[in-house]
Amino acid sequence: MRMYDIIKKKRDGGELTTEEIKYFIGGVTDGSIPDYQTSALCMAIYFRGMTVRETCDLTFAVRDSGDRLDFSDIDGIRVDKHSTGGVGDKTSLVVAPIVASFGIKVAKMSGRGLGHTGGTVDKLEAIEGFKTTLSDEDFIKQVNDIGFAIVGQSKQFAPADKKLYALRDVTATVDSMPLIAASIMGKKLAADDDCIVLDVKTGSGSFMKSVEDSKALARLMVDIGKNAGKKTVALITNMDRPLGYAIGNSLEVIEAVETLNGHGPKDFTEVCLTLAAYMLSLAGKGSVENCKKLAEQAIADGSALETFKRMVKAQGGDVKLIENTENFKKAKYAYAVKSTVSGYICKVDTEAYGLASLALGAGRNTIEDVIDYSAGIMLRRKTGDYIKAGDELATLYANDKTKFTAAEKLLLSATLLQDEKPQDEPLVYCTVE
Amino acid sequence: MRMYDIIKKKRDGGELTTEEIKYFIGGVTDGSIPDYQTSALCMAIYFRGMTVRETCDLTFAVRDSGDRLDFSDIDGIRVDKHSTGGVGDKTSLVVAPIVASFGIKVAKMSGRGLGHTGGTVDKLEAIEGFKTTLSDEDFIKQVNDIGFAIVGQSKQFAPADKKLYALRDVTATVDSMPLIAASIMGKKLAADDDCIVLDVKTGSGSFMKSVEDSKALARLMVDIGKNAGKKTVALITNMDRPLGYAIGNSLEVIEAVETLNGHGPKDFTEVCLTLAAYMLSLAGKGSVENCKKLAEQAIADGSALETFKRMVKAQGGDVKLIENTENFKKAKYAYAVKSTVSGYICKVDTEAYGLASLALGAGRNTIEDVIDYSAGIMLRRKTGDYIKAGDELATLYANDKTKFTAAEKLLLSATLLQDEKPQDEPLVYCTVE
Repeated sequence: MRMYDIIKKKRDGGELTTEEIKYFIGGVTDGSIPDYQTSALCMAIYFRGMTVRETCDLTFAVRDSGDRLDFSDIDGIRVDKHSTGGVGDKTSLVVAPIVASFGIKVAKMSGRGLGHTGGTVDKLEAIEGFKTTLSDEDFIKQVNDIGFAIVGQSKQFAPADKKLYALRDVTATVDSMPLIAASIMGKKLAADDDCIVLDVKTGSGSFMKSVEDSKALARLMVDIGKNAGKKTVALITNMDRPLGYAIGNSLEVIEAVETLNGHGPKDFTEVCLTLAAYMLSLAGKGSVENCKKLAEQAIADGSALETFKRMVKAQGGDVKLIENTENFKKAKYAYAVKSTVSGYICKVDTEAYGLASLALGAGRNTIEDVIDYSAGIMLRRKTGDYIKAGDELATLYANDKTKFTAAEKLLLSATLLQDEKPQDEPLVYCTVE
Repeated sequence: MRMYDIIKKKRDGGELTTEEIKYFIGGVTDGSIPDYQTSALCMAIYFRGMTVRETCDLTFAVRDSGDRLDFSDIDGIRVDKHSTGGVGDKTSLVVAPIVASFGIKVAKMSGRGLGHTGGTVDKLEAIEGFKTTLSDEDFIKQVNDIGFAIVGQSKQFAPADKKLYALRDVTATVDSMPLIAASIMGKKLAADDDCIVLDVKTGSGSFMKSVEDSKALARLMVDIGKNAGKKTVALITNMDRPLGYAIGNSLEVIEAVETLNGHGPKDFTEVCLTLAAYMLSLAGKGSVENCKKLAEQAIADGSALETFKRMVKAQGGDVKLIENTENFKKAKYAYAVKSTVSGYICKVDTEAYGLASLALGAGRNTIEDVIDYSAGIMLRRKTGDYIKAGDELATLYANDKTKFTAAEKLLLSATLLQDEKPQDEPLVYCTVE
């Protein structure tokens, strides 16, 4: 088998065989295929696409390029949720304890934030003492005892994806449906879940800008999940605005805790309940409609919050912070961003909001950057709200005053006002099953 | 400027600016652009194509990446002919002396053979003593004195093309019109001619398999030549069969000398006269029709042969070989390839004929290979001829008997017979001006 022939076949619109795809990913993993051939193939895939069969083979080859988890010692049904990444997206902190409170197991390996999007593991580390590394035994024991655990990715999952992504990133071949789907699902399938709910973010804060594209990606990922023998569902959710009001690590944990207390922002609560409902339903707890009621009930009766606290405690976090979020360490400085004009907020560039939070110290430009957990943004007005000139759009938090200027500029130029109240957009566009 | 943005722009169907193309070729030349970005861009160009303007800019950037010649010390009009490469293509040896015999200057830098196609410089080196390296001064002096000189490429012409081609060759991005045109013309324009006649070979022995593709390539190359301020014309000629009967270096020189003597094969003579006519016409010697008569006359009155002999002598070659081609050193062994069936030859795979000659030792698989000048093939029958089972299709020549087996197999399996006489195909399909 020669890589040249594989490139030429795809270039000419052919369908690659399972063996050819395995040969390709094997060569990427062990470095025997030079980068210039890999990038040429990625560009050919960009133009020619891949069939579902090819995409599944690519995904499985990516999955098999590294470590895989074995959850057979976990009792009961294992469900995971995966988000394609957004701004202010702290849903895992809420849906995992809701679902776990019903005895469904959520054994979660989460990523760290990079660029404008945050990572669940970073958010949890804003809780003093919280450990995001557990031994395999402790991890499984905790999932069996409490129902869920969230740790960072200590294993070497899908190293082929890491190499491929680094190359795609500098050769303009990121925006290819089959390559995106194989990258996400190749990592996701390295875990050992029975059911997967995919949260495909759509809009200015996500890398899928249109609902149509999101649907196509969701369709492909759901097909891949099913082909791998997992119950899989995708929700296309709105990321044309940040989710909730908090952006930044401790601010987002506080908002998640408020939501578990029943006082969360309406949009964020709604998305969490919907995701939890689908997770419970896939796990056999009945119709989505009924499961949504179960989810509401888990918040109302405090069982979700209780489960969350048990998890925090088990992973070494300071539970007093959860019991009273006033105890979270605050940033030294706060700064009010005020609107210079009046009008309805009709559109925001959510990615720019994420970058503003990054500029305040809440995120990472490169993987070496150190996160400032108390930094971030509390929005005071969101899309659809009316704001008067001089009113506060958002409060910025930072431990370095000089960071406010850039963040303020980003926020103001990312917020578009108009005279008329804009139409409401859905929070969840549709589901793909 | 970032290479990433250039790749993305082309991927999305955009037209690259002159500056972007210069940046790209500059980075290829100095090695600052990594191969994986170059191959991704080549694949994007494969799919998106390039406008004539972009292709011209690419060609000029390739040309400017290395040495350029200065022919200002050559008196009179300078004309060159460039062939895209074929099998048995010894036209330069005939057209250059015809044209030079009329005082038109042909200052020729020629390539060496690789794979199934031969190179003019290799053929000339079959003449004992012939030097294919001259100092710049001697080269220009000879062109002024005799009217023409043919040397190898001692300068570093278009190094960007060398790098680009090596990369395209292993990433399935060779077959792209603008990349092919820029590669050929980038090197050609490094010379300093007033007029260029392009011989675009078409068919099984060339890399353009269809007349349509050849026309498109010719159109592009003619436009590039004109944009560079050169009078340019292209002829689409037939390479669905070898040109003439001789394949192999000394065999081809002998056939060229016979042609200059007026006893050449009909097809080869016709192509030479047509190419010479266009060269003379571009150089201002009147209509193509009249110039063809001039070319015939130069053969009939011996002036072309005389000019050829003067060139050989000036470059140190043994003129006695030209005066009597029986003096050429012969291969130790000859072998008759006989047809096993009867019929009309309706089709041949010309590339396979070239590979048979290569197998006999007449060519190079890699640039390090040493050529056996006396090895090669003399065809006894060609497309359109009737052959009886047991009749000789070709005589093979080699200095190593063991090489006959492979060459015979190649020839026989590349020759298709049928009962009916096939229709004649044109030698010159059309011209592109």
